[in-house]
Amino acid sequence: MIYKKLDQPNLLLPKGFSACGTHVGIRKNPNKLDFCLLKSDVVSNAVAVFTTNKFCAGPVIVSRDHIYPSKKLQAIVVNSGNANAGTGEQGIKDSQEITKLIGDKLQMDSSLVAPMSTGVIGNNLPMDKIRNSIDSLNPSSKISNGIDFAEAIKTTDTTSKKSGYKMIIDEKEVHLCGIAKGSGMIHPNMATMLGFITSDVNIDVDCLDELLKESVKYSFNAISVDGDTSTNDSVYVLANGKAQNKELNKNHPAWGDFCDVFQQLCQSLAIQIAKDGEGASKLIVVNVLNAITKEDAVQVGRSVISSNLLKTAMYGNDMNWGRIACAIGYSGVDIDISKTEIYAGDNNEIELMKHGQGLQFDETTAYAYLEQNEIHFTINLNLGNQDAKAWGCDLTNEYVFINGAKRT
Amino acid sequence: MIYKKLDQPNLLLPKGFSACGTHVGIRKNPNKLDFCLLKSDVVSNAVAVFTTNKFCAGPVIVSRDHIYPSKKLQAIVVNSGNANAGTGEQGIKDSQEITKLIGDKLQMDSSLVAPMSTGVIGNNLPMDKIRNSIDSLNPSSKISNGIDFAEAIKTTDTTSKKSGYKMIIDEKEVHLCGIAKGSGMIHPNMATMLGFITSDVNIDVDCLDELLKESVKYSFNAISVDGDTSTNDSVYVLANGKAQNKELNKNHPAWGDFCDVFQQLCQSLAIQIAKDGEGASKLIVVNVLNAITKEDAVQVGRSVISSNLLKTAMYGNDMNWGRIACAIGYSGVDIDISKTEIYAGDNNEIELMKHGQGLQFDETTAYAYLEQNEIHFTINLNLGNQDAKAWGCDLTNEYVFINGAKRT
Repeated sequence: MIYKKLDQPNLLLPKGFSACGTHVGIRKNPNKLDFCLLKSDVVSNAVAVFTTNKFCAGPVIVSRDHIYPSKKLQAIVVNSGNANAGTGEQGIKDSQEITKLIGDKLQMDSSLVAPMSTGVIGNNLPMDKIRNSIDSLNPSSKISNGIDFAEAIKTTDTTSKKSGYKMIIDEKEVHLCGIAKGSGMIHPNMATMLGFITSDVNIDVDCLDELLKESVKYSFNAISVDGDTSTNDSVYVLANGKAQNKELNKNHPAWGDFCDVFQQLCQSLAIQIAKDGEGASKLIVVNVLNAITKEDAVQVGRSVISSNLLKTAMYGNDMNWGRIACAIGYSGVDIDISKTEIYAGDNNEIELMKHGQGLQFDETTAYAYLEQNEIHFTINLNLGNQDAKAWGCDLTNEYVFINGAKRT
Repeated sequence: MIYKKLDQPNLLLPKGFSACGTHVGIRKNPNKLDFCLLKSDVVSNAVAVFTTNKFCAGPVIVSRDHIYPSKKLQAIVVNSGNANAGTGEQGIKDSQEITKLIGDKLQMDSSLVAPMSTGVIGNNLPMDKIRNSIDSLNPSSKISNGIDFAEAIKTTDTTSKKSGYKMIIDEKEVHLCGIAKGSGMIHPNMATMLGFITSDVNIDVDCLDELLKESVKYSFNAISVDGDTSTNDSVYVLANGKAQNKELNKNHPAWGDFCDVFQQLCQSLAIQIAKDGEGASKLIVVNVLNAITKEDAVQVGRSVISSNLLKTAMYGNDMNWGRIACAIGYSGVDIDISKTEIYAGDNNEIELMKHGQGLQFDETTAYAYLEQNEIHFTINLNLGNQDAKAWGCDLTNEYVFINGAKRT
């Protein structure tokens, strides 16, 4: 299989998908898009992962009901500025009404529409504004419409998160696109943000479901901004088959390559979220080597990138590697201190710890490295042969400022 | 049983205990005490809980070996400014040497001496300075010596943590005293700081062991400052029997009362630590009511006080209760959203959520309440009849400043 990653934002919508975004007044700033729609021309295979937060939002409950067990969907409608969480029965009813309004407009059953909301917790949606805006939604396949969708789902995000791949399967051009949002309330314990992955690939839906669940472990679930798992986290995948390749499944020769590309797309979106963490000034990449299992490797990595103490040290350009050792130690993974090694640097140039003991390193070199906006650590557990990465960001005064500010 | 809590710092050392603190140069500031000793005139019953961090420090390993399985101890030697963690085999050897030096000085077997260190991770102890200072340690039972000990174990603490109770058991005066430290790297998943509890009570050591393990769950393990579980966390209890009461055990009529006092002492020390969290401007108290089990109640409370998003909102005096609902939801405890209630206020005056739905409240009143330096939330799960509390602090710019600053 040949594939190449296309530059953003050239590829946002695969064949047969259209989108749009508009301002309906949920957000105060009239220039901020806050309501958007993504649709497929035909009914798509659809799978999703949702937050495991018990206080999950109304739209999570309704989306889950609409996607499972049918695994079919044709449209997703999203608002930002209001999470429709902590809104009780009314919240569920409002999400259901929105799917009905969109279903009527697009002439499809409301069960083929998934609703999602993101923003402040605890307020009911302004349904009048939403009802009045349905007519103004006009999805198209233009690039600018995909960009509008990506803009409309943003909350405290400073950038929109997008990734697109093109590949050839059975001599057919197949597109895989992803749009995501997330900046605060990001913690690796489940799907940790909103992600919308679309493809024109023809694929067995059960294989797709498995692929998504496996891929999020090492992408969306391998990042952390602040340790808080949101009430609304969801990643959706829609595959409409318009590429007309032979149905992809585990027996198809291109299956392995497609899984790799899918994983890369998920990681690309996840890294963009970690990098744009609220108030973050730098991306922290932790590469864990030679764990007994891949799950162990990602668990150690997540523990390290979630450490407030490491995150503040990174903000202060302080190579306080003891905080990494500490976070490895409380990760819950069985480690052997005497075998553990810690390195910093894009090529592991700065040796920090071996055999459980700190090494002498040049503080000036270390400080200069930490001034970069992307910091790499490598942890070699020397226990097995499984590797994984995790991504996070520093904890800054700006984070405290953003989250200490009034909701309004 | 009659008991009363004595005002600090009147009661720091029970009968038969002595202490001292000195400056040996581990910390740069010559006015900062950094080395100290606590001893009993006679061999004491001793129990302890230690960090579950796999990267535990040398002194944790040596202390555990000296206390278990014998459950006997006569002295504890502590330094601040250096955690002796991430120091490999040498770290263990250094801790062992210190117990030997103290044992020789006090003419007791080194296995009766427990070592402890607290401070920066990753540097070997300056053993020459320590060896040279052994002669200058002169423990006495004077109040000022107890105060010196409490001062010498501080790191970023702005206050020393002390609590003392006096009670009558079998017509004998019994004293129970506690000294603790902790300000950063505090997270409720195990013993989360250093605590030294001493008593002249005559008590069965296995009962004491059980009592400590039960009490830490609802005191030291019910607080969080920053979500990081330290490499050195330890709580020690020494009981030397000098009060000459009949041996306390589960069949003694005063057992229940003694357990209550012990729990109060642990909670008092834990609250002092939460209140003095690095950079904290206020104490946050979360009272969880009507859980199915007491463990569930404390788990919900710990989840809430650990939320970075709630902690920053508290710093900003923003009654963003949705972040409390979110943290209840990801606590891992099975809850029923439709039954959950959230209140703020010393007497639950501010109703925030009922039946999983937000309520209207007066923002001005809420802001004024959050400006206090002690904030109370009550979460009623309405599922059972078990209650527990958890204590935390806000996340401030000062925290970021303290932890972003260079180690030196």
